Amino acid sequence: MSAEGWLKIIGLGPGSEELITPEASSALGEATDAVGYVPYVERLAPRLGLTRHGSDNREEIRRAEQALMMAAEGRRVVVVSSGDPGVFAMGAAVFEALEAGRPEWRALDIQVLPGVSAMLAASARLGAPLGHDFCCLNLSDNLKPWALIEKRLRLAAEADFAMAFYNPRSRSRPEGFARALAVLREACGEARPIMFARAISTPQESVRVTSLGEATPEMADMRTLVMVGSSLTRRFPAGREGEGEWVYTPRSAPSSEATR
Amino acid sequence: MSAEGWLKIIGLGPGSEELITPEASSALGEATDAVGYVPYVERLAPRLGLTRHGSDNREEIRRAEQALMMAAEGRRVVVVSSGDPGVFAMGAAVFEALEAGRPEWRALDIQVLPGVSAMLAASARLGAPLGHDFCCLNLSDNLKPWALIEKRLRLAAEADFAMAFYNPRSRSRPEGFARALAVLREACGEARPIMFARAISTPQESVRVTSLGEATPEMADMRTLVMVGSSLTRRFPAGREGEGEWVYTPRSAPSSEATR
Repeated sequence: MSAEGWLKIIGLGPGSEELITPEASSALGEATDAVGYVPYVERLAPRLGLTRHGSDNREEIRRAEQALMMAAEGRRVVVVSSGDPGVFAMGAAVFEALEAGRPEWRALDIQVLPGVSAMLAASARLGAPLGHDFCCLNLSDNLKPWALIEKRLRLAAEADFAMAFYNPRSRSRPEGFARALAVLREACGEARPIMFARAISTPQESVRVTSLGEATPEMADMRTLVMVGSSLTRRFPAGREGEGEWVYTPRSAPSSEATR
Repeated sequence: MSAEGWLKIIGLGPGSEELITPEASSALGEATDAVGYVPYVERLAPRLGLTRHGSDNREEIRRAEQALMMAAEGRRVVVVSSGDPGVFAMGAAVFEALEAGRPEWRALDIQVLPGVSAMLAASARLGAPLGHDFCCLNLSDNLKPWALIEKRLRLAAEADFAMAFYNPRSRSRPEGFARALAVLREACGEARPIMFARAISTPQESVRVTSLGEATPEMADMRTLVMVGSSLTRRFPAGREGEGEWVYTPRSAPSSEATR
Protein backbone atom coordinates (compact mmCIF):
# COMPACT_ATOMS: atom_id res chain seq x y z
CA MET A 1 0.00 0.00 0.00
CA SER A 2 1.37 3.38 -0.99
CA ALA A 3 1.44 6.21 1.54
CA GLU A 4 0.25 8.63 -1.11
CA GLY A 5 -3.17 7.23 -1.80
CA TRP A 6 -6.25 8.95 -0.51
CA LEU A 7 -10.00 8.92 -0.78
CA LYS A 8 -12.09 12.10 -0.82
CA ILE A 9 -15.85 11.80 -0.84
CA ILE A 10 -16.96 15.04 -2.43
CA GLY A 11 -20.14 16.89 -3.37
CA LEU A 12 -20.40 18.61 -6.75
CA GLY A 13 -23.33 20.81 -5.72
CA PRO A 14 -26.68 20.89 -7.52
CA GLY A 15 -25.36 21.51 -11.04
CA SER A 16 -23.74 24.88 -11.62
CA GLU A 17 -19.94 25.19 -11.57
CA GLU A 18 -20.49 28.34 -9.51
CA LEU A 19 -21.75 26.19 -6.65
CA ILE A 20 -18.75 23.84 -6.40
CA THR A 21 -16.61 24.74 -3.38
CA PRO A 22 -12.92 25.60 -3.92
CA GLU A 23 -12.10 22.67 -1.60
CA ALA A 24 -13.92 20.20 -3.89
CA SER A 25 -12.34 21.77 -6.99
CA SER A 26 -8.87 21.33 -5.51
CA ALA A 27 -9.56 17.67 -4.77
CA LEU A 28 -10.75 17.16 -8.35
CA GLY A 29 -7.59 18.83 -9.61
CA GLU A 30 -5.34 16.47 -7.64
CA ALA A 31 -7.25 13.24 -8.20
CA THR A 32 -6.04 10.39 -10.38
CA ASP A 33 -9.43 8.65 -10.36
CA ALA A 34 -13.05 9.78 -10.10
CA VAL A 35 -15.71 7.25 -9.18
CA GLY A 36 -19.47 7.80 -9.28
CA TYR A 37 -22.84 7.39 -10.90
CA VAL A 38 -22.46 7.96 -14.67
CA PRO A 39 -24.21 11.36 -14.99
CA TYR A 40 -22.20 12.80 -12.08
CA VAL A 41 -18.84 11.52 -13.35
CA GLU A 42 -19.72 13.03 -16.74
CA ARG A 43 -19.98 16.45 -15.11
CA LEU A 44 -16.18 16.35 -14.69
CA ALA A 45 -14.19 17.77 -17.60
CA PRO A 46 -11.87 15.05 -18.97
CA ARG A 47 -8.21 15.76 -18.35
CA LEU A 48 -4.92 13.96 -18.76
CA GLY A 49 -4.09 12.00 -15.61
CA LEU A 50 -7.72 11.63 -14.46
CA THR A 51 -9.54 8.37 -15.09
CA ARG A 52 -13.31 8.61 -14.81
CA HIS A 53 -15.05 5.46 -13.58
CA GLY A 54 -18.79 5.81 -14.15
CA SER A 55 -21.11 3.12 -12.82
CA ASP A 56 -24.82 2.41 -12.70
CA ASN A 57 -27.31 3.55 -10.12
CA ARG A 58 -27.99 1.02 -7.30
CA GLU A 59 -24.33 -0.06 -7.39
CA GLU A 60 -23.26 2.13 -4.49
CA ILE A 61 -21.50 -0.51 -2.38
CA ARG A 62 -19.55 -2.01 -5.28
CA ARG A 63 -18.55 1.50 -6.34
CA ALA A 64 -17.43 2.35 -2.79
CA GLU A 65 -15.33 -0.84 -2.62
CA GLN A 66 -13.73 -0.04 -5.96
CA ALA A 67 -12.81 3.42 -4.67
CA LEU A 68 -11.35 2.06 -1.40
CA MET A 69 -9.39 -0.55 -3.32
CA MET A 70 -7.85 2.04 -5.64
CA ALA A 71 -6.94 4.35 -2.73
CA ALA A 72 -5.27 1.35 -1.04
CA GLU A 73 -3.22 0.87 -4.22
CA GLY A 74 -1.90 4.42 -3.86
CA ARG A 75 -4.32 6.22 -6.18
CA ARG A 76 -5.81 9.62 -5.32
CA VAL A 77 -9.51 8.88 -5.59
CA VAL A 78 -12.53 11.17 -5.50
CA VAL A 79 -15.96 9.65 -5.03
CA VAL A 80 -18.37 12.15 -6.54
CA SER A 81 -22.00 12.78 -5.68
CA SER A 82 -24.36 15.48 -6.77
CA GLY A 83 -25.21 18.03 -4.05
CA ASP A 84 -23.69 17.09 -0.69
CA PRO A 85 -22.09 13.64 -0.23
CA GLY A 86 -23.76 13.16 3.16
CA VAL A 87 -27.39 13.64 2.10
CA PHE A 88 -28.77 10.55 0.32
CA ALA A 89 -25.52 10.18 -1.56
CA MET A 90 -22.23 8.23 -1.54
CA GLY A 91 -21.08 9.16 1.99
CA ALA A 92 -23.08 6.50 3.81
CA ALA A 93 -22.25 3.86 1.17
CA VAL A 94 -18.49 4.40 1.53
CA PHE A 95 -18.66 4.09 5.33
CA GLU A 96 -20.79 0.94 5.03
CA ALA A 97 -18.16 -0.54 2.71
CA LEU A 98 -15.34 0.65 4.98
CA GLU A 99 -16.85 -0.85 8.14
CA ALA A 100 -17.53 -4.21 6.44
CA GLY A 101 -14.40 -4.25 4.30
CA ARG A 102 -10.68 -5.10 4.58
CA PRO A 103 -9.17 -4.07 7.92
CA GLU A 104 -6.27 -2.27 6.19
CA TRP A 105 -8.70 0.12 4.48
CA ARG A 106 -9.27 1.80 7.86
CA ALA A 107 -5.71 3.16 7.79
CA LEU A 108 -6.43 5.06 4.57
CA ASP A 109 -6.51 8.84 4.41
CA ILE A 110 -10.26 9.41 4.01
CA GLN A 111 -12.05 12.75 4.01
CA VAL A 112 -15.57 13.93 3.30
CA LEU A 113 -15.82 17.34 1.62
CA PRO A 114 -19.26 18.91 2.01
CA GLY A 115 -21.19 20.53 -0.83
CA VAL A 116 -24.31 22.61 -1.46
CA SER A 117 -27.15 20.08 -1.29
CA ALA A 118 -30.08 20.10 -3.74
CA MET A 119 -32.31 20.93 -0.78
CA LEU A 120 -30.40 24.13 0.08
CA ALA A 121 -30.21 25.22 -3.56
CA ALA A 122 -33.95 24.62 -4.05
CA SER A 123 -34.77 26.44 -0.85
CA ALA A 124 -32.64 29.43 -1.93
CA ARG A 125 -34.37 29.67 -5.30
CA LEU A 126 -37.78 29.84 -3.61
CA GLY A 127 -36.89 32.22 -0.76
CA ALA A 128 -36.50 30.51 2.61
CA PRO A 129 -39.08 27.71 2.89
CA LEU A 130 -36.76 25.79 5.26
CA GLY A 131 -36.23 28.88 7.40
CA HIS A 132 -37.41 27.13 10.54
CA ASP A 133 -37.36 23.56 11.91
CA PHE A 134 -37.52 21.05 9.04
CA CYS A 135 -36.97 17.44 8.07
CA CYS A 136 -35.51 15.79 5.03
CA LEU A 137 -36.78 12.43 3.72
CA ASN A 138 -35.88 10.10 0.90
CA LEU A 139 -39.21 9.01 -0.64
CA SER A 140 -37.68 6.04 -2.43
CA ASP A 141 -38.72 2.67 -1.03
CA ASN A 142 -35.83 0.81 -2.69
CA LEU A 143 -34.01 0.44 0.63
CA LYS A 144 -36.74 0.89 3.25
CA PRO A 145 -40.32 -0.26 3.68
CA TRP A 146 -43.08 2.03 2.41
CA ALA A 147 -44.78 1.82 5.83
CA LEU A 148 -41.78 3.61 7.36
CA ILE A 149 -42.01 6.44 4.82
CA GLU A 150 -45.70 6.86 5.61
CA LYS A 151 -45.08 6.77 9.37
CA ARG A 152 -42.39 9.45 9.05
CA LEU A 153 -44.61 11.66 6.89
CA ARG A 154 -47.39 11.53 9.49
CA LEU A 155 -45.04 12.27 12.40
CA ALA A 156 -43.34 15.09 10.47
CA ALA A 157 -46.76 16.64 9.83
CA GLU A 158 -47.66 16.29 13.51
CA ALA A 159 -44.38 17.98 14.47
CA ASP A 160 -45.28 20.72 11.97
CA PHE A 161 -41.88 20.55 10.28
CA ALA A 162 -41.28 22.06 6.89
CA MET A 163 -40.25 19.10 4.74
CA ALA A 164 -37.84 18.41 1.89
CA PHE A 165 -38.18 15.24 -0.18
CA TYR A 166 -35.50 13.56 -2.30
CA ASN A 167 -36.29 10.96 -4.98
CA PRO A 168 -40.02 11.66 -5.05
CA ARG A 169 -40.77 9.64 -8.14
CA SER A 170 -39.25 7.13 -10.53
CA ARG A 171 -40.47 5.09 -13.45
CA SER A 172 -40.18 1.92 -11.39
CA ARG A 173 -42.38 3.30 -8.56
CA PRO A 174 -44.87 5.69 -10.15
CA GLU A 175 -47.50 5.16 -7.43
CA GLY A 176 -45.37 6.02 -4.37
CA PHE A 177 -45.47 9.78 -4.74
CA ALA A 178 -49.27 9.77 -5.27
CA ARG A 179 -49.60 7.94 -1.96
CA ALA A 180 -47.25 10.41 -0.25
CA LEU A 181 -49.35 13.32 -1.54
CA ALA A 182 -52.52 11.66 -0.22
CA VAL A 183 -50.97 11.18 3.24
CA LEU A 184 -49.78 14.80 3.29
CA ARG A 185 -53.14 16.17 2.14
CA GLU A 186 -54.86 14.30 4.95
CA ALA A 187 -52.29 15.37 7.57
CA CYS A 188 -51.62 18.98 6.50
CA GLY A 189 -54.78 20.03 4.62
CA GLU A 190 -55.33 21.05 0.98
CA ALA A 191 -54.13 24.64 1.39
CA ARG A 192 -50.58 23.81 2.55
CA PRO A 193 -47.90 25.11 0.12
CA ILE A 194 -45.91 22.55 -1.87
CA MET A 195 -42.94 23.40 -4.05
CA PHE A 196 -41.39 21.55 -6.98
CA ALA A 197 -37.81 22.56 -7.74
CA ARG A 198 -36.34 20.74 -10.74
CA ALA A 199 -32.68 20.66 -11.81
CA ILE A 200 -31.86 23.84 -9.88
CA SER A 201 -28.88 25.83 -11.18
CA THR A 202 -28.82 23.89 -14.48
CA PRO A 203 -30.17 24.99 -17.90
CA GLN A 204 -33.18 22.68 -17.29
CA GLU A 205 -34.14 24.47 -14.08
CA SER A 206 -37.82 24.94 -13.32
CA VAL A 207 -39.77 25.89 -10.22
CA ARG A 208 -43.46 25.61 -9.34
CA VAL A 209 -45.30 26.67 -6.18
CA THR A 210 -48.81 25.37 -5.55
CA SER A 211 -50.94 23.85 -2.78
CA LEU A 212 -51.31 20.22 -1.72
CA GLY A 213 -54.89 20.36 -3.03
CA GLU A 214 -53.68 21.34 -6.52
CA ALA A 215 -50.55 19.15 -6.62
CA THR A 216 -50.42 16.11 -8.90
CA PRO A 217 -47.79 13.33 -9.00
CA GLU A 218 -46.73 14.33 -12.53
CA MET A 219 -45.31 17.60 -11.18
CA ALA A 220 -42.26 15.67 -9.91
CA ASP A 221 -39.69 13.42 -11.52
CA MET A 222 -36.37 12.02 -10.27
CA ARG A 223 -34.65 15.39 -10.84
CA THR A 224 -37.19 17.22 -8.67
CA LEU A 225 -36.66 18.27 -5.08
CA VAL A 226 -40.07 18.62 -3.45
CA MET A 227 -40.72 20.78 -0.40
CA VAL A 228 -43.83 21.15 1.74
CA GLY A 229 -44.26 24.09 4.09
CA SER A 230 -45.12 24.00 7.79
CA SER A 231 -48.46 25.43 8.94
CA LEU A 232 -46.70 28.82 9.29
CA THR A 233 -45.08 28.92 5.84
CA ARG A 234 -46.06 31.97 3.79
CA ARG A 235 -46.26 32.75 0.03
CA PHE A 236 -46.37 36.18 -1.58
CA PRO A 237 -45.90 37.55 -5.11
CA ALA A 238 -42.30 38.42 -5.92
CA GLY A 239 -43.42 41.61 -7.68
CA ARG A 240 -40.96 41.31 -10.56
CA GLU A 241 -42.40 40.00 -13.81
CA GLY A 242 -41.86 36.30 -14.37
CA GLU A 243 -40.45 35.71 -10.91
CA GLY A 244 -43.54 34.08 -9.46
CA GLU A 245 -43.74 33.85 -5.70
CA TRP A 246 -41.48 33.96 -2.70
CA VAL A 247 -42.02 31.28 -0.06
CA TYR A 248 -40.61 31.45 3.46
CA THR A 249 -41.09 29.94 6.88
CA PRO A 250 -40.89 32.60 9.61
CA ARG A 251 -38.26 32.42 12.34
CA SER A 252 -40.79 32.48 15.16
CA ALA A 253 -43.67 30.28 16.23
CA PRO A 254 -46.54 31.39 18.51
CA SER A 255 -47.26 29.61 21.80
CA SER A 256 -50.37 28.02 20.28
CA GLU A 257 -48.07 25.95 18.01
CA ALA A 258 -47.09 23.78 20.96
CA THR A 259 -50.63 22.55 21.57
CA ARG A 260 -51.95 22.11 18.03
CA MET B 1 -34.83 54.15 -7.08
CA SER B 2 -31.89 53.16 -9.24
CA ALA B 3 -32.17 50.23 -11.62
CA GLU B 4 -28.73 49.04 -10.55
CA GLY B 5 -29.41 48.21 -6.94
CA TRP B 6 -29.71 44.60 -5.85
CA LEU B 7 -29.91 42.47 -2.76
CA LYS B 8 -28.17 39.12 -2.48
CA ILE B 9 -28.72 37.02 0.61
CA ILE B 10 -25.62 34.88 0.77
CA GLY B 11 -24.08 32.12 2.86
CA LEU B 12 -20.40 32.29 3.82
CA GLY B 13 -20.19 28.58 4.72
CA PRO B 14 -19.06 27.30 8.12
CA GLY B 15 -15.77 29.21 8.36
CA SER B 16 -13.08 28.19 5.87
CA GLU B 17 -12.55 30.29 2.74
CA GLU B 18 -12.30 26.97 0.92
CA LEU B 19 -16.01 26.38 1.56
CA ILE B 20 -17.32 29.65 0.11
CA THR B 21 -18.93 29.06 -3.30
CA PRO B 22 -17.59 30.96 -6.33
CA GLU B 23 -21.11 32.40 -6.72
CA ALA B 24 -21.01 33.93 -3.23
CA SER B 25 -17.44 35.20 -3.77
CA SER B 26 -18.52 36.97 -6.97
CA ALA B 27 -21.41 38.65 -5.17
CA LEU B 28 -19.02 39.80 -2.44
CA GLY B 29 -16.68 41.17 -5.09
CA GLU B 30 -19.43 43.25 -6.71
CA ALA B 31 -21.16 44.48 -3.54
CA THR B 32 -21.05 48.07 -2.29
CA ASP B 33 -22.47 47.15 1.12
CA ALA B 34 -22.37 44.09 3.36
CA VAL B 35 -24.92 43.75 6.14
CA GLY B 36 -24.91 41.14 8.90
CA TYR B 37 -24.22 40.06 12.44
CA VAL B 38 -20.87 41.55 13.54
CA PRO B 39 -18.72 38.36 13.59
CA TYR B 40 -19.93 37.36 10.11
CA VAL B 41 -19.36 40.81 8.59
CA GLU B 42 -15.88 40.74 10.11
CA ARG B 43 -15.09 37.60 8.12
CA LEU B 44 -15.09 39.80 5.00
CA ALA B 45 -11.73 41.32 4.09
CA PRO B 46 -12.05 45.13 4.05
CA ARG B 47 -11.71 46.62 0.58
CA LEU B 48 -12.16 50.01 -1.06
CA GLY B 49 -15.76 50.44 -2.22
CA LEU B 50 -17.24 47.99 0.28
CA THR B 51 -18.93 49.33 3.41
CA ARG B 52 -19.40 46.74 6.14
CA HIS B 53 -22.47 47.25 8.35
CA GLY B 54 -22.19 44.98 11.38
CA SER B 55 -25.13 44.77 13.76
CA ASP B 56 -26.03 42.94 16.95
CA ASN B 57 -27.65 39.56 17.31
CA ARG B 58 -31.47 39.61 17.67
CA GLU B 59 -31.68 42.59 15.30
CA GLU B 60 -32.51 40.54 12.23
CA ILE B 61 -35.60 42.44 11.08
CA ARG B 62 -34.04 45.88 11.47
CA ARG B 63 -30.95 44.61 9.62
CA ALA B 64 -33.12 43.19 6.82
CA GLU B 65 -34.97 46.52 6.46
CA GLN B 66 -31.67 48.41 6.33
CA ALA B 67 -30.49 46.11 3.53
CA LEU B 68 -33.74 46.48 1.55
CA MET B 69 -33.61 50.24 1.96
CA MET B 70 -30.04 50.46 0.66
CA ALA B 71 -30.83 48.23 -2.33
CA ALA B 72 -33.82 50.49 -3.10
CA GLU B 73 -31.39 53.43 -3.10
CA GLY B 74 -29.38 51.72 -5.83
CA ARG B 75 -26.71 50.06 -3.68
CA ARG B 76 -25.47 46.53 -4.36
CA VAL B 77 -26.10 44.87 -1.02
CA VAL B 78 -25.10 41.48 0.32
CA VAL B 79 -26.75 40.19 3.47
CA VAL B 80 -24.29 37.72 4.95
CA SER B 81 -24.95 34.71 7.15
CA SER B 82 -22.69 31.97 8.31
CA GLY B 83 -23.39 28.59 6.69
CA ASP B 84 -26.44 28.67 4.42
CA PRO B 85 -28.73 31.74 4.46
CA GLY B 86 -31.88 29.60 4.48
CA VAL B 87 -31.10 27.52 7.60
CA PHE B 88 -31.73 29.50 10.82
CA ALA B 89 -30.15 32.56 9.23
CA MET B 90 -31.02 35.82 7.50
CA GLY B 91 -33.11 34.38 4.62
CA ALA B 92 -36.37 34.15 6.57
CA ALA B 93 -35.81 37.54 8.22
CA VAL B 94 -35.37 39.32 4.86
CA PHE B 95 -38.57 37.77 3.47
CA GLU B 96 -40.48 38.69 6.62
CA ALA B 97 -39.28 42.29 6.23
CA LEU B 98 -40.04 42.23 2.50
CA GLU B 99 -43.60 40.94 2.94
CA ALA B 100 -44.38 43.49 5.68
CA GLY B 101 -42.39 46.36 4.17
CA ARG B 102 -42.74 49.04 1.52
CA PRO B 103 -44.59 47.82 -1.61
CA GLU B 104 -41.84 49.17 -3.91
CA TRP B 105 -39.29 46.82 -2.29
CA ARG B 106 -40.98 43.89 -4.05
CA ALA B 107 -39.73 45.20 -7.40
CA LEU B 108 -36.11 44.90 -6.26
CA ASP B 109 -33.69 42.40 -7.76
CA ILE B 110 -33.41 39.91 -4.87
CA GLN B 111 -31.56 36.59 -4.92
CA VAL B 112 -30.66 33.98 -2.35
CA LEU B 113 -27.28 32.28 -2.89
CA PRO B 114 -27.00 28.98 -1.03
CA GLY B 115 -23.98 27.96 1.03
CA VAL B 116 -22.54 24.97 2.84
CA SER B 117 -24.50 24.84 6.10
CA ALA B 118 -22.87 24.11 9.46
CA MET B 119 -24.92 20.92 9.56
CA LEU B 120 -23.46 19.58 6.30
CA ALA B 121 -19.91 20.56 7.28
CA ALA B 122 -20.27 18.88 10.69
CA SER B 123 -21.77 15.78 9.15
CA ALA B 124 -18.89 15.56 6.64
CA ARG B 125 -16.28 15.81 9.39
CA LEU B 126 -17.84 12.89 11.26
CA GLY B 127 -18.54 10.63 8.28
CA ALA B 128 -22.19 10.55 7.22
CA PRO B 129 -24.39 10.70 10.34
CA LEU B 130 -27.19 12.37 8.33
CA GLY B 131 -26.93 9.70 5.62
CA HIS B 132 -30.60 8.78 5.93
CA ASP B 133 -33.84 10.61 6.84
CA PHE B 134 -33.12 13.41 9.32
CA CYS B 135 -34.49 16.57 10.86
CA CYS B 136 -32.95 19.88 11.78
CA LEU B 137 -34.10 21.90 14.82
CA ASN B 138 -33.20 25.23 16.35
CA LEU B 139 -33.01 24.59 20.12
CA SER B 140 -33.25 28.29 21.00
CA ASP B 141 -36.52 29.29 22.65
CA ASN B 142 -36.03 32.99 21.90
CA LEU B 143 -38.67 32.91 19.17
CA LYS B 144 -40.73 29.83 19.99
CA PRO B 145 -42.16 28.21 23.11
CA TRP B 146 -40.05 25.57 24.84
CA ALA B 147 -43.03 23.19 24.78
CA LEU B 148 -42.85 23.15 20.96
CA ILE B 149 -39.16 22.23 21.02
CA GLU B 150 -39.89 19.37 23.40
CA LYS B 151 -42.85 18.17 21.31
CA ARG B 152 -40.71 18.17 18.17
CA LEU B 153 -37.88 16.28 19.91
CA ARG B 154 -40.30 13.53 20.99
CA LEU B 155 -41.90 13.22 17.55
CA ALA B 156 -38.48 13.22 15.84
CA ALA B 157 -37.39 10.38 18.13
CA GLU B 158 -40.60 8.47 17.39
CA ALA B 159 -39.98 8.95 13.64
CA ASP B 160 -36.43 7.65 14.25
CA PHE B 161 -34.85 10.56 12.41
CA ALA B 162 -31.20 11.39 12.77
CA MET B 163 -31.21 14.93 14.19
CA ALA B 164 -29.14 18.08 13.85
CA PHE B 165 -29.46 20.88 16.40
CA TYR B 166 -28.55 24.54 15.95
CA ASN B 167 -28.10 26.96 18.88
CA PRO B 168 -28.01 24.25 21.54
CA ARG B 169 -26.89 26.48 24.37
CA SER B 170 -26.39 30.11 25.31
CA ARG B 171 -25.43 31.99 28.45
CA SER B 172 -28.96 33.39 28.67
CA ARG B 173 -30.58 29.92 28.57
CA PRO B 174 -28.13 27.48 30.19
CA GLU B 175 -30.87 25.07 31.28
CA GLY B 176 -32.55 24.46 27.88
CA PHE B 177 -29.97 22.05 26.51
CA ALA B 178 -29.96 19.98 29.73
CA ARG B 179 -33.71 19.55 29.32
CA ALA B 180 -33.29 18.61 25.65
CA LEU B 181 -30.73 15.96 26.62
CA ALA B 182 -33.12 14.55 29.25
CA VAL B 183 -35.96 14.31 26.71
CA LEU B 184 -33.69 12.62 24.18
CA ARG B 185 -32.29 10.16 26.75
CA GLU B 186 -35.82 9.12 27.68
CA ALA B 187 -36.97 8.86 24.04
CA CYS B 188 -33.85 7.33 22.42
CA GLY B 189 -32.05 5.51 25.26
CA GLU B 190 -28.64 6.08 26.85
CA ALA B 191 -26.65 4.25 24.16
CA ARG B 192 -27.70 6.45 21.25
CA PRO B 193 -24.71 8.27 19.63
CA ILE B 194 -24.51 12.04 20.05
CA MET B 195 -21.94 14.24 18.31
CA PHE B 196 -20.61 17.68 19.17
CA ALA B 197 -19.01 19.52 16.26
CA ARG B 198 -17.62 22.90 17.20
CA ALA B 199 -16.45 25.64 14.83
CA ILE B 200 -15.93 23.20 11.96
CA SER B 201 -13.39 24.26 9.31
CA THR B 202 -11.97 27.01 11.57
CA PRO B 203 -8.75 26.94 13.67
CA GLN B 204 -10.96 26.36 16.76
CA GLU B 205 -12.48 23.20 15.32
CA SER B 206 -13.18 20.32 17.69
CA VAL B 207 -15.25 17.17 17.45
CA ARG B 208 -16.50 14.73 20.07
CA VAL B 209 -18.52 11.53 19.69
CA THR B 210 -20.18 10.01 22.73
CA SER B 211 -23.52 8.51 23.84
CA LEU B 212 -26.59 10.24 25.24
CA GLY B 213 -25.84 8.55 28.57
CA GLU B 214 -22.37 10.15 28.73
CA ALA B 215 -23.31 13.54 27.27
CA THR B 216 -23.35 16.65 29.48
CA PRO B 217 -24.69 20.12 28.66
CA GLU B 218 -21.19 21.63 28.95
CA MET B 219 -20.11 19.75 25.82
CA ALA B 220 -21.98 22.33 23.70
CA ASP B 221 -21.81 26.10 23.37
CA MET B 222 -23.29 28.48 20.80
CA ARG B 223 -20.62 27.55 18.25
CA THR B 224 -21.47 23.85 18.49
CA LEU B 225 -23.60 21.92 16.04
CA VAL B 226 -25.03 18.90 17.85
CA MET B 227 -26.18 15.75 16.09
CA VAL B 228 -27.96 12.68 17.44
CA GLY B 229 -28.08 9.44 15.47
CA SER B 230 -31.13 7.39 14.55
CA SER B 231 -31.51 3.89 16.04
CA LEU B 232 -29.55 2.56 13.04
CA THR B 233 -26.59 4.98 13.25
CA ARG B 234 -23.23 3.23 13.58
CA ARG B 235 -19.81 4.23 15.07
CA PHE B 236 -16.47 2.59 14.38
CA PRO B 237 -12.81 3.50 14.95
CA ALA B 238 -11.28 5.46 12.10
CA GLY B 239 -8.07 3.44 12.38
CA ARG B 240 -5.72 6.38 11.87
CA GLU B 241 -4.15 7.77 14.98
CA GLY B 242 -5.91 10.83 16.39
CA GLU B 243 -8.81 10.55 14.02
CA GLY B 244 -11.28 9.15 16.50
CA GLU B 245 -14.37 7.52 15.13
CA TRP B 246 -16.44 7.53 11.98
CA VAL B 247 -20.20 7.83 12.41
CA TYR B 248 -22.72 7.05 9.68
CA THR B 249 -26.38 6.27 9.21
CA PRO B 250 -26.89 3.44 6.69
CA ARG B 251 -28.86 3.99 3.52
CA SER B 252 -31.30 1.19 4.24
CA ALA B 253 -33.80 0.42 7.00
CA PRO B 254 -35.21 -3.04 7.76
CA SER B 255 -38.95 -3.75 7.65
CA SER B 256 -39.03 -3.90 11.45
CA GLU B 257 -38.28 -0.15 11.54
CA ALA B 258 -41.82 0.62 10.41
CA THR B 259 -43.42 -1.00 13.46
CA ARG B 260 -41.06 0.07 16.26
